[in-house]
Parts: sequence; structure tokens; C-alpha cells
Amino acid sequence: MNIKSCQLFLIVLSAFWSCQNPEIATNSTNKNLHPNLILTTEAVTTIKKNLGSIPIFDQTLEETKKQVDIEISLGIKVPMPKDMAGGYTHTQHKKNYATMQKAGVLFQLLGDEKYAVFIKEMLYKYAKLYPTFDRHPQIRSYARGKFFWQCLNDSNWLVYTSQAYDCIYSWLSEEERIYLNTNLFRPYADFLSIETPQYFNRVHNHSTWGNVAVGMIGLVIDDEELIQRALYGLKTDDIKEDAMDNDGGFIKTKGQKTGFFANLEHPFSPDGYYTEGPYYQRYSMYPFLIFAQALETKRPELKIFEYKNGLLIKAVDALMNLTDEDGEFFPLNDGQKGMSYYTESLISAVDIAYHYGGKQPHLLSIAKKQNYVELDATGLSVALGLKNGEEKPFVKESLELTDGSLGDEGGIGILRHNIKNEKLAVVMKYTAHGLSHGHFDKLSFSMYHNGDEVILDYGLARFVNIEQKNGGGYLKENTTWAKQTIAHNTITQNETSHYEGDFATGSKFHSEKYFFDASNPLIHITSAKEKNAYPGTDIHRTMAIISENNSNPFVIDIIKIDSKEKNQYDLPYYYFGQIISTNFEVFKPNELKPLGTKNGYQHLWNEGYGMPTSDGMQFTWLSNKNFYTITSATESKDEILFAKIGANDPAFNLRNDPTIILRKKNIKNTVFASIIEPHGTYNPVTETAKDAYSFYKSIKVESSNEKYTLVSIISKEGDHKLLIIANNDNSNKTKHNLIIDTKTISWIGPYYFK
Amino acid sequence: MNIKSCQLFLIVLSAFWSCQNPEIATNSTNKNLHPNLILTTEAVTTIKKNLGSIPIFDQTLEETKKQVDIEISLGIKVPMPKDMAGGYTHTQHKKNYATMQKAGVLFQLLGDEKYAVFIKEMLYKYAKLYPTFDRHPQIRSYARGKFFWQCLNDSNWLVYTSQAYDCIYSWLSEEERIYLNTNLFRPYADFLSIETPQYFNRVHNHSTWGNVAVGMIGLVIDDEELIQRALYGLKTDDIKEDAMDNDGGFIKTKGQKTGFFANLEHPFSPDGYYTEGPYYQRYSMYPFLIFAQALETKRPELKIFEYKNGLLIKAVDALMNLTDEDGEFFPLNDGQKGMSYYTESLISAVDIAYHYGGKQPHLLSIAKKQNYVELDATGLSVALGLKNGEEKPFVKESLELTDGSLGDEGGIGILRHNIKNEKLAVVMKYTAHGLSHGHFDKLSFSMYHNGDEVILDYGLARFVNIEQKNGGGYLKENTTWAKQTIAHNTITQNETSHYEGDFATGSKFHSEKYFFDASNPLIHITSAKEKNAYPGTDIHRTMAIISENNSNPFVIDIIKIDSKEKNQYDLPYYYFGQIISTNFEVFKPNELKPLGTKNGYQHLWNEGYGMPTSDGMQFTWLSNKNFYTITSATESKDEILFAKIGANDPAFNLRNDPTIILRKKNIKNTVFASIIEPHGTYNPVTETAKDAYSFYKSIKVESSNEKYTLVSIISKEGDHKLLIIANNDNSNKTKHNLIIDTKTISWIGPYYFK
Repeated sequence: MNIKSCQLFLIVLSAFWSCQNPEIATNSTNKNLHPNLILTTEAVTTIKKNLGSIPIFDQTLEETKKQVDIEISLGIKVPMPKDMAGGYTHTQHKKNYATMQKAGVLFQLLGDEKYAVFIKEMLYKYAKLYPTFDRHPQIRSYARGKFFWQCLNDSNWLVYTSQAYDCIYSWLSEEERIYLNTNLFRPYADFLSIETPQYFNRVHNHSTWGNVAVGMIGLVIDDEELIQRALYGLKTDDIKEDAMDNDGGFIKTKGQKTGFFANLEHPFSPDGYYTEGPYYQRYSMYPFLIFAQALETKRPELKIFEYKNGLLIKAVDALMNLTDEDGEFFPLNDGQKGMSYYTESLISAVDIAYHYGGKQPHLLSIAKKQNYVELDATGLSVALGLKNGEEKPFVKESLELTDGSLGDEGGIGILRHNIKNEKLAVVMKYTAHGLSHGHFDKLSFSMYHNGDEVILDYGLARFVNIEQKNGGGYLKENTTWAKQTIAHNTITQNETSHYEGDFATGSKFHSEKYFFDASNPLIHITSAKEKNAYPGTDIHRTMAIISENNSNPFVIDIIKIDSKEKNQYDLPYYYFGQIISTNFEVFKPNELKPLGTKNGYQHLWNEGYGMPTSDGMQFTWLSNKNFYTITSATESKDEILFAKIGANDPAFNLRNDPTIILRKKNIKNTVFASIIEPHGTYNPVTETAKDAYSFYKSIKVESSNEKYTLVSIISKEGDHKLLIIANNDNSNKTKHNLIIDTKTISWIGPYYFK
Repeated sequence: MNIKSCQLFLIVLSAFWSCQNPEIATNSTNKNLHPNLILTTEAVTTIKKNLGSIPIFDQTLEETKKQVDIEISLGIKVPMPKDMAGGYTHTQHKKNYATMQKAGVLFQLLGDEKYAVFIKEMLYKYAKLYPTFDRHPQIRSYARGKFFWQCLNDSNWLVYTSQAYDCIYSWLSEEERIYLNTNLFRPYADFLSIETPQYFNRVHNHSTWGNVAVGMIGLVIDDEELIQRALYGLKTDDIKEDAMDNDGGFIKTKGQKTGFFANLEHPFSPDGYYTEGPYYQRYSMYPFLIFAQALETKRPELKIFEYKNGLLIKAVDALMNLTDEDGEFFPLNDGQKGMSYYTESLISAVDIAYHYGGKQPHLLSIAKKQNYVELDATGLSVALGLKNGEEKPFVKESLELTDGSLGDEGGIGILRHNIKNEKLAVVMKYTAHGLSHGHFDKLSFSMYHNGDEVILDYGLARFVNIEQKNGGGYLKENTTWAKQTIAHNTITQNETSHYEGDFATGSKFHSEKYFFDASNPLIHITSAKEKNAYPGTDIHRTMAIISENNSNPFVIDIIKIDSKEKNQYDLPYYYFGQIISTNFEVFKPNELKPLGTKNGYQHLWNEGYGMPTSDGMQFTWLSNKNFYTITSATESKDEILFAKIGANDPAFNLRNDPTIILRKKNIKNTVFASIIEPHGTYNPVTETAKDAYSFYKSIKVESSNEKYTLVSIISKEGDHKLLIIANNDNSNKTKHNLIIDTKTISWIGPYYFK
């Protein structure tokens, strides 16, 4: 008996057993009566009792029914795979698994057999098509799939389809189950794992999907071997040490465990931050949480939701905090702009976190906005919570999210000002590299004002699922532009990216948190250091939101650089909108040339330059009916460059965002100091400009040495403020004394502001 | 006795008389008891009876009270004039007249004397300041004002302040009235008229304000001389024939009458279209209508609202039709984007048109959106109408608005498709030049999709009231760019603007309507000809929105050109968003150069070019989550240019909108034929692209001669459609017979489509 037939025997046996016990249908705790994966027989009973009296659930059910009925009326289509993402066959197979999953739920909740028949017939078509070809004809992926161009999408298929299968499992005859298990599901699980180890045996969001796909079907068909494989990975693989995926990420890390637990262990910090960034965290939350839900049902002894102090629940909270006012994720690393917590995977994430995470009422306010719930016990909990008016607002406060599985690899500092309808947020990034989706953007930041990105992170260079653009996949400009340092609001030294743009080097290091303090309502402040991006150069950035009474909130940005060599330092601020004024003359060329030849500089058109005086520079622009000003300390030999993205872009793949770049040349040690300030509004209907001018006269670096950096801010009304940063002691207990102009200033902790 | 003292005598007499009759306060029909201009004693009585039961009115009153109370608490500030538009003194004086007008209303409706005191004290400050200086220190205007840099704003002041004055007139003592009339109002009226004839004695929106200012104060103080001057202009002036204003417009037209009636007579067409365009029509509606309202009260024998078949009421309707789905005006000629019917002057326009125009219920739906009413009888009518649920939707249909005082100088063709949540609108312009605010854009158009401008008109080059940008005034790029032909979606011949960009020449001509037909639900179509923009060249453009069943609406654009000489013809389409694909190779230069040296071309960066085949070109882009495609008939020697606005723009005054330009070179006669098509959507949350590809394969010019142009459209599914335009017979009665491939096609009227 070879292994395969042995497995088959086990499956048959287990299927047989579950069929032999029809009388336990009423015993809802029996684990062998299906559904018992995401929906359970018990939940079905409870939901049915409540139907008609739980508005958000009823409405979701009705919409789901409408969607599925339309699909059923269009007939079953299981085309031979052919297209890239966005193309017909890709889209159809994607639609198929989504519809099957929903049809399964409808069969259980509405009891209408047509949904079960639809799933069965579709599965039969898949089972018939499956053995007729090898892999998908498109050969772009390092892990080509079957129905899709990459195994990732095939895993999506299996994660959803497992749920549909579970919903009709007890309804199917034994022969039908044997047929499907033998001809479709078991080979499919092996295909994704044993036959594609470079995809399955890895720590990466792709592999999470792979692990969960195998685990979900394993749980449905009670195949312990698949379950163990999902949880702990393949015991052996033949992946080479230097193998890379399509995104330039390494497949293997020496000594790295694999499988679901390894994927849960490694990329998440104890705060629930996922090292690839929020866009991929959002993508991963679904497999993590849906499998956790399944495990909670079928393997409660694993106590999966308590794992690492409730990591999975914390991760949902972290993700919510990584959104702007409109619920859109900060596009850190590879991130698509516009993706938000309205996405389907976040609906399940919120429902699962609510149900299994102690029913935290602030999650209900998100669920209410989503206006959609999961059609299972978790969605029922949310619907009942909302019905009973238990929701509380989800207030996003300033907070730090550490990176690294131990929380010691830097992090994200989020500063927020939420008062007086002037919402201001700064997101500063001092994390580890973020695996293959990481950008070379140590100490970069972005700024949001009332939900709009004002100082912007480019995000990814990709048109996800738009077939015309490289089949919807990553564009080469993601590497040549979006990942490069100059594409970010941080320091580029000598026109070279951090770690010379080398992924392997960058993956070894992370920035260091210096301090984070949001305890003073007047000033929320975050500070971090980077010592490895440019060997021999230390970069120390401190950012703060100042929320003084009776004035608009504003941002202070201080970057101290110390180097052994003389270098050129560029600090871009990417913005949107139209330039209103500068306090220095701008020279604009008659012809535009790229700003450089490599490391992203080749993609910037040099649109002008100016030479500010030592009094500092001011730059005001109008964006989305708001006035903003950057006020910076400058020296007479500094340069200001105006540039726009779009050079060397043969296929029009890049957005043409503008930037202003502060450049300091031929210098070892220096300090960049800026105020970034929203200060007024323009109304095109009343044609009134309110506060069109900055409130600040200047920002000055009074002094900076190894121990302290002193920066003064002078408002137009003549108010002086002083910010002191202790550069080499981040203890919040140290007492500092500093004599300035014969006056002694004393304070405790790493900074002073008054 | 000289004229001045004679006038004074009259004023004193009339003031005296009105004071001698306090007992007629209860006789609300007495014309001499104030207020009797915009508010009347009768209206005050009725309004007071209804207060508390007319929600929109009560709410407006409350908000107005709040605003005025804040201003009163801040104290009276009448600064010595100094600043340009957007600056402090400008803004303060502007605020003052707005607050006085409101305070006058509050005094009447609430009976609280503090409002009257506030007005009186402020007026005394003005009266005191008035004689202490000559004209405003800023010398930019051809008609410098007093408290403002241009008489226009001083006229605004007087129009509003007259209303405030009227509201406290009966409350003031005789001495106070004499003092204010003698020291402020009468000199002010003379200043705007006799002392500034180049401003007052003219047909222009400026002069309308001037006329109305003088007329309003004339009506308040019962000064017949001022009233006659306002209605019929100065009898003599010393304006030179070639005098021009700041915008390059002529002051004088030979034999032209002046005054309010001339301003009403000349620029309006019988359809209510105002030749300067909607932005200035919006601006003019306030003085036109507020003075009409005052005349209706005090000179009912003029029957002003019946003038020219109810022209003023029609004008409000025309203006509403010149807005997009969001109520924003099409930015034809000099027009600021974002200006909408939510502006204050349109609130009064809607209320006045409703009250005096037969209470048309569809105006109530606009008033409801405005959520604000005039605090007088007109606002009361609207509030009661809304309270009684009488509103009907304002449905904007396809329609033509003629230009010219006789309606025979071309016009605007507005095509709209309103079905299935796919709102599509095309605005084609074939008007006269439009006075000094006109652009050289014969037969240009813009296109709107669901309220967003998709093929865009640049509008004006100005940051209205943003002081940093040339004091908020017009920028030189308004002339060098915004007015030039290449800045518009129409034909530029040999890189020269229409009429060689000469205002005097352009002002002599207008395009000719050819036909307009919106009677067939399948196709709404407009067609016009231009024979003077380029002597020796005839341009004939036909645009249509096709609304076939079961498919998205789309636009057809056919331009037939016949010239005696060989020329180069450029047809730009200005769009927003990112390029998704082209069906031809695009060559992008390593350095960007301007596309030309003059006539607007110097402001376009040449970003690339392509050479399409004779099979036609296709160009798809993504804007605001929608996919659009332009499909054009091309010949092998045609060129496609990609360009972006922004070259030779030293002060960053221009928006950097992109354009694709179809270029045909060295040819006498030709036809441009394009399909412009919204066809799909992108959802960044679900990451799905729906209908990312055009539905059309090609558009072909089958033949074109003196009599007919035949264009065929072939869909991707293989459907063929034929559009035939009869080129020299626009009668809708002519029967045409045409043999195509042995098949005879017969139809009646100027076009065929099937």
C-alpha cells in the first residue's frame, strides 16, 4: 500500500463514520456532524432562531442571497485556466470560490437545497478539470498555481471552498465525498504543499494562505496528516538557501520553522504589528483568523486565541490603528492606496475579534460602518451587540506599535491630534525591513490631515488586478522607484538608497526606537535612530505633533545626522496640490531633465531649484481646499529642489506626484528642522481664503552636539518656543540641566518643550 | 444753486416727508415708509407672523443672528484701505458690508435696536473716512475704487449697504440721514458713476454692479437723478474708443447704450444665457435680480420681471442648467472651478426667481439643497413652499442655450444622459466671444461623468482672493495659457489660436449653430460650424451622446475640416488620471521640452509621442476609479502627442493637467472622429476591475465630401453602427437618399444613425 492509497483509506473511513451517525444531528456538540468548521450546527440553530430580528445580519443575508441567486442564474462556469490577474478565467475562478462559500452558508441558514446542488455541481466540474492539466499556463510566478497563475490564488480558492464543502459535507453521499476528496481536494492540498515546497514551507503571507488552505481542508475531511502539515510545515523540502520569489524576497531563512505556527510566531510583534506592513497584514488576517476560528471549533485545546497573550485579537486592533480617518490603511511598504477596513477580510477580522476577544464594544462601531457581518456565530454576536446598542466609538489615539517577534526591532510611531475637527496624524516608520514587501525607507513618515494624506507615502507601484498593467502584478517601477529611499520622506545620502538598496543587507537590520511619549496633551512625540542604512552615518529623527491651545496643531520634524565623511543629504517632502508661494526665488529650467540616473532619482523630473537664505525657507501650497506650509531651517549653501515623479517611465506606470527636496551638500554633521503646518482653508464657493499664511516666522537650530539638539520656533506673533532633545539618553528618569544665556533650564526625560 | 446742492435739497425733502408720516407705519402699502427696497414693511409683518413655523427660514435667521452677533462682539473696524484682494483691509471691508446687510434684516425681523446702532455707527465711520483720501492706494485697476482696489468691489459695498441703510432709514433721525447722504452715499454714487465713467458707462458685468449700486442707493434716498443714471447710464462720458480694461476688453462699443437696461439687453440671449459665461452670469445675477426686486417694489410700472418674456427668470433657469451633477458651474470662458449654485448670489437668485417667476416647484428642490433662504418675502415664499412639500426635482435635460441678444449668435449645446446611474454630460460651446472674459475656444467642449469633469476645460488661471497669487487677481497665464485655443478641447490650426488670439477680431464673430436634436432618446446630438477663426478654413463639429439599451452611454465626436491650404491640425483632449494602456507604441523623451514657443504651446511639456496605424488609436485611462477610453480614427501619418501643462510657468501658477493631442499634418481637408467612452470601474477595496476594456473596436470615417460625412462604429462584439451627417443642409424636413454598397439609405433631417 503506497502512501496515497493509505491516505485515501483514512478519508473513506472518516467519511463513513460521520455518515453512520445521523441521529446526532440534534446533538449540536458533536464535532463530526458538519458544518463544524466556520459555521457549526449549533450556530446554525441559534442564528435561525434570531433571523428577522437582527437587522445587520438579516440585511447581509439578504444581499448574499441576491448575489448568489444571480450567479446561480448565470450558470456554472469552470473555464480552463488561461489569464493573468484581472483576466476572464482568473476573475471567474475567483468568483466561483466566493460564490460557493456563500452558497454553503445559504444552504445551512435557509435550508434550500438548490445551494447545495450548485456547490456540488461546481465541485464536480473542478474535480473533472483538475487532473487534465499540469500547472497554469502563465509562467510568471515562482510558484505557479493550477486554476490561477500563482499558488497564492489557488490557496484562496481552497480556503473558501473548504467552507462551502463543509456546509454540504453531511448532505453529500459517501460516494460523492470519496470522489471529491480523491479527485480534487486531497491532490489539491498536496499540490499546494508537497509539490510546491518553495511556496508552502516558508514564513510569508503567501505561505500563510498555503498553510491555512491545507489546514482547512484537512479539518473538513478530518485528515490529521494535512492538519499537522498545515500547523508545522513540511518536515523536509529541497529549497535552496538562495532561492528567491518574484518580489525579490528570500524563500528560506536558516533554521526557520515553517507552517501556520511559524507564520504566526515570526512576522507579528507582541503588539500585533505584522512586519510586512498593514496592506499585507490586512491580506493575512483572513487566513489567520478564519483558521483560528476553525481550530477553536475543532481543536479547542490549542487555545489559539490566547496564543502569545491574545496576539490575533491584538493584531486586529493594531490594524485598525493603522488606518486614517476614513479607515484607509497607511500604505507602508508595498501598500495599495484606498484599501480600507471596509474590505471583506476585515469584516471577518472584526467579527472574529469581537466574538472571540471578549466582545470589545469599540469594535462594534467599526462593524457598524462596515454594515456587513459574517454569516456565522461571530457575525451573529456583532449583530446582537449592535442591536442592543452596545457599541462605543473606536478612538484612535497616539500609540507605538513595535516590530519584530519579540517587539525589539523598532516599530511604528503614530502621533494623532483629534481635537476641534482638526485631525492631524503622523506615521513614522522605524521598523525592520518587512520581508520582501519592505521598502528602503528607514525613519520615513507620512502625514494626514482630516483623513487626507498631505505628506505622502507613494505606496506600491502596481495596479492590482488591472490586467493591462503587467497582468495586475507588481510593476518593475516598484523596484526602481517605489522601494527606493528617494521615493520616501526620509534622508537619502549621496543619491544612494539605504543599505545600497540591497534586500539581504536591509533584512539584517532594523531602526532603533529612541523614545515615544504621548502622555503630554500639548506634545506627542516619537524619536528613533538609524545607524546601519549608511555605514558611518547616524541618523536620528524626532517628530512631534504640537497641540497648543488656541492654535492649529502642527508637526515638528528634526533630523540630526552625524557622519564620518562629508556627504550630500536629500530630504524630500512629497505633497499634493498647487504651490502658492515660496519665500525664495525659484529658478525653473527651460527643459526638464531627470534628477539622476539611478536609485529612483532617474524617475524624478527636476522642475526647478532655489537657494534659500540662512533665515530659513518657507513653502506654502494649497491642496484639497487647505493651505499648508513647510517652514525649515536652512543655511545659505543649502539647495531646494522641485521635482515631479514620471521620468524614465515608458509605460506611464507612475503617478506624477510633486516633491520639494531640501538638499545639504558636502557636510558631515547637520540638522534638518522643519515645521509642517496646516493653517487655513480656501472655499471656492464663497471665494474666501482663511488663514492663507503660515502662523510661523521661522524655526532655527540653536545648537546641536553629541548631547543635545536645541531648536527654537518663532511664531509670527512673536511667541518663542524651545524644543530640546537629549541625544544620548532616552531614559525618562534622567534629570537634565542646561544653561542657556545664563538661564538654567531643568527637566526630566529625553526632551524638553516650552 | 448748483446741481449738487439741488440734489441735496431733494434728498432732504424726501427724507423729511417720510418722517412726517409716522402714522402710516401700519399702512403697509405706503412706499415711503422704510424698509421698502428688498425687505418691505409688509413683508416684515408677514414674516414675523410665520416665524417659528418655517424651518428653513427660521434656521437661516438663527445662523444669520449668530454670525452678526459674533461680528458685533468683535467691534467695528473700518480700516484705511491698503490691501489687494485677499488682504486684511479688503477682507474687512467686504465683511463689513455683508454684516451690515444682515444686521439690517435682523433689526427689522427681531426688532433689536443693537443691530440698527451697529449699522449707524459703522456708517458714520465710513462717512468720516470717506473724504480723507482720494482713491485706493493700489493702482492695478483701470477703475480704481475707494475702499477697494477696484470700483467693482466698492459697488458690491454699496449694493449691500443700501439694503442695510434702507432697513434703518426710518429709524434714523433726519439729521443723521442728511449727514450720511451728504457725506457718504451721494458722493459715493457720483464717485462710481460721474467720476469713473470708464467703469460705469459700459456693457459689462462690472458696470452692472456699478449701475445697480447707484440705483439701489437712489431708490433708498429717493433720488430720481441717480435712478435715471442707473437705468440709462451717463448721458455723456469722455471714454476713448480704444480704451481697454485690465482683462483686455474694450470699454466702449460704438453706438452702444449704457446703464442697467443696456446691460440687461445686450449680454443676455432670449434663453437667458449671459455671453460672458456662467461664472460671470452667477456673479451678475445678484445685482440684476436684487435691483429687479427693488424696482418691482418701487417702480412696479416697469414690470421688470416681464421684461423680454421674463428674461431674468429664464436666466436663473439657464444658470441652473449650466451646472454639473453637483451644482458646479461649467467653467466656460473665465470660470473658477468649484463655484456652484450654493453660492450666496444663487440663493437669492433662486428665491427671487421662485417668488416672482410663478413659483415653479422645481426651484424648490435647489433651494432645499442650498438649505438657506433670503430673509425677505422671497425667502418666505420658498420656506413656505418647502414647508408645504411643494418641491419637484430639477431635472436637467439636454438643451440648447442660444447666445446673442437676439439669440442668433451661436450658443451652448448641452447633451445629457441621465439613465441607470450613469450620468453623462457634454457641453459644446459655439457662442460669440463672450466679451473680455471670453476664451479663443470655438467649438470646444467638456465632458462630465457622474458629476466629475472627465474631459476638462481649464477654466481661468487665477486664485480668486488668494493674496499671494497676484493679489487674488487674474494671472498673466490667464492670457498666455487659459484663453489660448490649445488650452481647449478643440482644433488649433498651425499652432495659432483662433482669430490669431486677437480679441477685437474674435469679438466680431461667432460660431453658427448647425443643428441640435434631443428628440430621440437613443441619440442626443448637437452640431455647429466655425468659419472665421481661421480664414480659409471651415470647421464643423458634431457631438452626440449615444444611449443604447443594455450598454453604457458614450460620446461621438466628429470634426470635419475643409481648408484652402494645407495645414497642421491639433485636437487635444484634456483628462485627469493615469494612463492604463494605448494600442500604439509611445516614445518618451529623456528630456522634456515645451511643445512650442507661443500661443499656449510654450506652456505644454511634450512628454511623449506615438504613431498610430491606419486601424485607429485607442487610449485608456483610469480616473477617480473609472475607466475611460478614447477610440479615434487615425491615418498612418497622424501623430499622437502626450503633453502636460506647466512649462514656462515661473510662479507655479498653472495646474499640471495632462492631455493627449491628435495631430494631423500637411493636409487640407480631413475628419477627426472619436468615441469617448466611460466603460468600467476599479474598486481599490475589493481590488476588482470591472470592464477595464473599451467596448469598441474602432471608429472609421467611411467617406466625407461636401454633402455627407459617413462614420462607422464597430463594437468588440461586432455590432456595426453608421452615423451620417448631412454637411450642407440642416433642415429637419429634407429627405436624403444615399446608396451605400448598392443599398439605399433614406432618412429625413440632417443626420442618420442606426
